[in-house]
Amino acid sequence: MEFSSKLLEKAVNEMSQLPGVGKRTALRLVLHMLRQPKEQTAGLTEAIQAMRNNVKFCQSCHNISDNILCEICSSHNRNTEIVCVVEDIKDVMAIENTSSFKGLYHVLGGKISPMDGIGPHDLNIESLVKKVKDGKVKELIFALSSTMEGDTTNFYVFKQIQDYDVVTSTIARGISVGDELEYADEITLGRSIVNRIPFESSLKL
Amino acid sequence: MEFSSKLLEKAVNEMSQLPGVGKRTALRLVLHMLRQPKEQTAGLTEAIQAMRNNVKFCQSCHNISDNILCEICSSHNRNTEIVCVVEDIKDVMAIENTSSFKGLYHVLGGKISPMDGIGPHDLNIESLVKKVKDGKVKELIFALSSTMEGDTTNFYVFKQIQDYDVVTSTIARGISVGDELEYADEITLGRSIVNRIPFESSLKL
Ligand SMILES: [Zn+2]
Ligand SMILES: [Zn+2]
Repeated sequence: MEFSSKLLEKAVNEMSQLPGVGKRTALRLVLHMLRQPKEQTAGLTEAIQAMRNNVKFCQSCHNISDNILCEICSSHNRNTEIVCVVEDIKDVMAIENTSSFKGLYHVLGGKISPMDGIGPHDLNIESLVKKVKDGKVKELIFALSSTMEGDTTNFYVFKQIQDYDVVTSTIARGISVGDELEYADEITLGRSIVNRIPFESSLKL
Repeated sequence: MEFSSKLLEKAVNEMSQLPGVGKRTALRLVLHMLRQPKEQTAGLTEAIQAMRNNVKFCQSCHNISDNILCEICSSHNRNTEIVCVVEDIKDVMAIENTSSFKGLYHVLGGKISPMDGIGPHDLNIESLVKKVKDGKVKELIFALSSTMEGDTTNFYVFKQIQDYDVVTSTIARGISVGDELEYADEITLGRSIVNRIPFESSLKL
C-alpha cells in the first residue's frame, strides 16, 4: 500500500496489528476518524488508555474489575458457595447475560494448551484449589469449552480438587435450543442422546 | 451486555462507534489489548492521536499529507499537466498501487449526494476549476465511481470546465481482467461492448 502520509501509515500499521483487522479495514477506520471531529478520536483513545492502564483483575475471581473485588464478588445477592469455573471474562459476560446463575465465578484466564506453551501454572488454578481447600465452596460448575484443551483443563482442575468435599458438575452439552437436529455435529448429537434428561424436567426449561 | 468494569464498558462503547465494529468485535479487540503489554496499546493510541491531530490535507490536491504539499504534488517525477480526479484518498492509493499513472491527482472529498446533504460546495470542485482556468492542466481524467452520484458529480464538474482548453476522459469501464463474462452485471457488459477497443490495442494491455 502506498501512503501519502507517514502519520497515516503509522496509524494504519498499528491498527492492523489488532486481531482480525487487516490493512484495508484499518485504513477504512482511520479515514473514518479523519472525517469525525477530533474530540471523537480523543474520546476513543482516552477510553482505551484509561482502560488499559487502570483496569484491575478481581483478587478473588480474576474477572476484570475497577476495584480490588469485582461487582459480582462484592455483591450481597450472590450465593458464594457455588462457583462457576470459566476460561475467560467473555464467558462470565455470556453467562451473566442469561441471568440464570446467581453464584460466583472463577476465571482461569485460558486453558491448558501445550501447543501454545500454556501450562497449568499459567492459569488461575492454585487460587481456585485454595478456595475449595478452605471449605468456602460447596459446588463447582465447570463451564469450559468443549474442545480438547477445555477437556484437558477440566480434567486437570478436577484432579486437584477431587479429594475435597465439593460437588462438581459440567454444563450440559446438547443441541442448541431452536436448532435443527440435522445440522448438529455428530459429537454434540451423540452427547445429547447419552445425556438425555427426563421429558418432564425438559418441560421446565 | 453485562460489564464488570466501567473502564472496560467505556472502551468497548467507544470502539463500537467505529463503522463495522459491533459490541462483540469491540470486546474482542479490547480483551486482546489487555493481554498485550501496555506499551503496545500506548503505541496504538499515540499513533492514532498523532495522525488525527497532525495530518494535513495537501493544499493543491487535497490528498492526505504530512506537509503543505503532498509527496505526489511535490515530486519532480510527475507530469503536472495531467490530473486524475477522484472521490477520496483511498482512490489515490488504489491508483498509485497500480503504478500506471504518473500525473497528479485532485481529491474531491466525496460525491454530490442530495440524499446525504452533500452538494457541490461541500466538495473540492472550486480549486479544480481554478487549476483548469489558470491553464496549468492539459488533461483531466475522471476516475469517479460508476454510480448515480459518481455520474452526477462527473457531469457537474465537466460542466464547470468544458469551456476551457482541457482534454477530458473517463476511465474505461468493462469486464474485470480475469472475470468470467457470465458473472458480469449487464450494465458493465453492455458498456464494455459499446466501448470496445481495437483488438490490436488490447494486446498491449
Ligand atoms: Zn470477582
Ligand atoms: Zn498533493
